[in-house]
Amino acid sequence: MTQMSEALKGNVTPEMELVAKYEGVNVNKIIRGLSKGTIVIPKNINRKTKVYGIGEGLTTKVNANIGSSSKIEDLDLEVKKAKLAVEYGANAVMDLSTGPELNKFRKAILKEVDVPIGTVPIYEAGVQTLNANKEIIDMDEDLIFKVIESQAKEGVDFMTLHCGITKELVPKIQKQNRKMGIVSRGGTFLASWILHNDSENPLYENYDYLLEIAKEYDITLSLGDGLRPGCLLDASDIPQIQELVNLGGLVKRAQQEKVQVMVEGPGHIPLNQIKANMELQKSLCHNAPFYVLGPIPTDIAPGYDHITAAIGGAIAASNGADFLCYVTPAEHLSLPSLEDVKEGVIGTKIAAEAADVSLGLEKAWKKENDMAEARRNFDWDKQFEIAIDSSKPRVYKNKCKIDDDEMCAMCGEYCAVKIAKDDF
Amino acid sequence: MTQMSEALKGNVTPEMELVAKYEGVNVNKIIRGLSKGTIVIPKNINRKTKVYGIGEGLTTKVNANIGSSSKIEDLDLEVKKAKLAVEYGANAVMDLSTGPELNKFRKAILKEVDVPIGTVPIYEAGVQTLNANKEIIDMDEDLIFKVIESQAKEGVDFMTLHCGITKELVPKIQKQNRKMGIVSRGGTFLASWILHNDSENPLYENYDYLLEIAKEYDITLSLGDGLRPGCLLDASDIPQIQELVNLGGLVKRAQQEKVQVMVEGPGHIPLNQIKANMELQKSLCHNAPFYVLGPIPTDIAPGYDHITAAIGGAIAASNGADFLCYVTPAEHLSLPSLEDVKEGVIGTKIAAEAADVSLGLEKAWKKENDMAEARRNFDWDKQFEIAIDSSKPRVYKNKCKIDDDEMCAMCGEYCAVKIAKDDF
Repeated sequence: MTQMSEALKGNVTPEMELVAKYEGVNVNKIIRGLSKGTIVIPKNINRKTKVYGIGEGLTTKVNANIGSSSKIEDLDLEVKKAKLAVEYGANAVMDLSTGPELNKFRKAILKEVDVPIGTVPIYEAGVQTLNANKEIIDMDEDLIFKVIESQAKEGVDFMTLHCGITKELVPKIQKQNRKMGIVSRGGTFLASWILHNDSENPLYENYDYLLEIAKEYDITLSLGDGLRPGCLLDASDIPQIQELVNLGGLVKRAQQEKVQVMVEGPGHIPLNQIKANMELQKSLCHNAPFYVLGPIPTDIAPGYDHITAAIGGAIAASNGADFLCYVTPAEHLSLPSLEDVKEGVIGTKIAAEAADVSLGLEKAWKKENDMAEARRNFDWDKQFEIAIDSSKPRVYKNKCKIDDDEMCAMCGEYCAVKIAKDDF
Repeated sequence: MTQMSEALKGNVTPEMELVAKYEGVNVNKIIRGLSKGTIVIPKNINRKTKVYGIGEGLTTKVNANIGSSSKIEDLDLEVKKAKLAVEYGANAVMDLSTGPELNKFRKAILKEVDVPIGTVPIYEAGVQTLNANKEIIDMDEDLIFKVIESQAKEGVDFMTLHCGITKELVPKIQKQNRKMGIVSRGGTFLASWILHNDSENPLYENYDYLLEIAKEYDITLSLGDGLRPGCLLDASDIPQIQELVNLGGLVKRAQQEKVQVMVEGPGHIPLNQIKANMELQKSLCHNAPFYVLGPIPTDIAPGYDHITAAIGGAIAASNGADFLCYVTPAEHLSLPSLEDVKEGVIGTKIAAEAADVSLGLEKAWKKENDMAEARRNFDWDKQFEIAIDSSKPRVYKNKCKIDDDEMCAMCGEYCAVKIAKDDF
C-alpha cells in the first residue's frame, strides 16, 4: 500500500490525520490531494518518523542537505547538523554523503533524525564503483537498482532519481553549448554514462521496475533535475525544459501506479523567469508537488547564497513550489558548518513563511497577527517565542541595558510605536 | 540651478556625465530622465562627493542608515559604520542620529563619507525641542524650517520630509484602528503634533517655502511615508494609500519648480502586494524614483530582517523601486553593529543585483557572465574578485586544504562541473 493508493480507496491513514492536524485543515483535503497526486506524504513503510504533507494548499516545507564529501567525513558532525536543521524547522533532511563510508552516514541519520529522510542512490552506486577501482562510466546497471532496493529496505522515505536524462537528450546538451555544462552530480554521472556506453539511462529504461520498488516501500520518488542550469545564462534552455517534459511523462506513469511522486526544479534562474518556471512545471507535470533548490537569482554573492536563495525560494513558493531545499552560505565553496546549516534553514524558513503569507494560508497569518500584537504591546518574550530563532533577537535586544521596556536601543525615546500608541 | 533645471535647458553637467559613465549609458538618457523627473542625482551644491543617479532604467541603488539613538552615542563607531557601508557598496548613507549631540554626527558624516548623505531634519527639530525641556507636540514650526535651512547649508544631499501627513488624514488613521498604529518616527512626530495643535502639518502648509530652500541648494526631496504599515495586517490600507495620493500631488509641485524629488515607500508588505504597491506609486507619483525600506514580507524573523528585506527588496526593485534602504539584522531590536551594517548592505546589494539582472540591465548581466566563466574555469581568484564580499567566500574555500584546484570541499571528486567539463 501507498498513501496514494489508500487515499484513492478513501481510506484515512494515521499519516493523513497527522498531516491534516499539522496544517489545520480537514483530512478530506489531504485525501483529495493524495488522490490527484498534488500532495505527497513521504514516509517509508519501514520507518517510524514525523510526517509532513508536501503540495498544493499546504504550508511550504523545507529540506536541509547534509552529508560527507570525499574530502570531509565526520559522522558525529553530520548527525549534529541534521538535528540542528530539524531544531530550526527543517521538515526533511537529505543525506547527500559521498565519502567512502557513506552507508554509515545514512544509517546513522535514519536512526537519529526524526523527519523524513531523502537520499540520491546514484551517489552510493557511484562511490561503490569508485571504491572498486572503476570509473563512473563503468557503473553497473544492476548495482544502481540493488542500491535503490537496499536503501528502500533501510527506510529511506524519498529518493532523488534522475530518470529524465535520456539518450536522446544527451546530444542536445552538447549542442546547446551551455556556459556551465551540467552542475548536478547525479546528472553528470548519468549523462557521462549514457554518452560513453551509448546506452539508455537505466533509470529511464527500467522505470517500471523502479516504480515496483517504490510501491513496495511507499518511497516518494523525487524526479531529479539533472540538467538544471548552473548559471543564469543557462536558465530555461532547451535541455532543462526537455528534461522537464520527460519528467512530466514519468510523473503520469508513477501516478497511474499509485506511486507518490514529486519533481525537482532549478537552480540558477533570473528573478523574472521564476514564475514561468513554476507554472511550466505544474502544467507539464500534472500538478505534482515541486521541490526546488534555490532558485538563485544572482551568482555574484558566494558566501551569502542563503540570502540569494531566500529571494528565489520566496518567489518560487508563492508561485507554486511546495518544497524548498535550503542553500547554505557555504554553497559552491565547501561543506557547511553547523552555523551554516542553521543560517541555511532560517533563510529558507523565512522564504517559506513569506510565501505562505502571500498565499493567504491561515496558519501563517496567525503568526503575523500574534507578532504584531506582541510588538504593539512591547511583549518582548512573546516576540522571541514566535520568532524562527528565539535566541538571536534576544541577544540583540539585551545588548544595551534599558530600564523602560517600551522601547529598544534602536530608536530609544523616539520609538514611534511608544509615542503613537495612545493616539493611533 | 538644479540638475533638473539644467537638464530641462539641455545643459550637460559634470554630474550627468559621471552618472552616464557609471551606468554605461548615453548621457542623453540621463538628461531625459532628469527632465521628466524619473531620475534624480542627489547632490547638494555645497558638497563635493561621488554622485549616483537614481531612477528608471538605472541600476538599483542602495542606502545604509547609520546614526546615534538617545541610548547610544558613539561618534567614531557611526563614522566607521558609514565607511564600511560604502566599502561594501552602499551608494548613499542616511544619518538618522537622534542622540543629544546629533549635529556633531551629521557634520562628521558629511565630512568623512564620500557618497550622497541624507537626513531627516524633523529629528533634529525634535531633539532640539526635547533638549529645551519641551515636548514633541510643542515643536515650533519655525524651528523645523530653520533646521532644514541650516542642514541644507551644511551640504546635506537629500532629505526625508513627511509632507504628506495632512490634518485631514489624521482622523482617518484613528478611524482605521490599525494593528500597529504609526511606526515612522517622523510620521509620529507630525501626526501627534497635528492632533494636539489642531493645525495643519507645517511641511505641507509651507511646502512652497520648502521647495525654495530645496531649489537653492539642489536638495533632493525624499517625500517620507510617515504612515507606512508597521505589520503585514496594516499593509496597503487607507491611510497608507491616502498619504501616497497626497505625495503624488507634492511630486508634481516639486517637479514644476524643477526641484528633484523622490518618494519613500513601505515597509511591511505581504509578498503578493509588493508589485501593486510599486505600480501604484509610479502611477500616482508621476514616475518619480521610488525609495523603499524593505519591504519586509514576514515579521516572524527578528534578528534576520536583512534576509526578509532582501526578499522584499528584490521583488520591489524588479517591479519599479529604484533605491533600496538596507535593513540590518538588528532592525526592531537595537542599533546595528559594524558586522550588522556589513550584513545589511550585502543583503540589499544582492536584492539590487537580482533585480537588475531581472530587468535585463547589461551591467548586471556582464557580472553574471564573468562569474559563470570564472566558475567553469575554476578561477577562484576571479570568482572572489567579482563577489560582493571577496573575503568571506575565500575563507570558506580555504577552510579545507585541497591539492586539486578543480574542485571544492563541498563535492570533492564528485564535482559535476569537473566531471562534465570535457563532454558538455
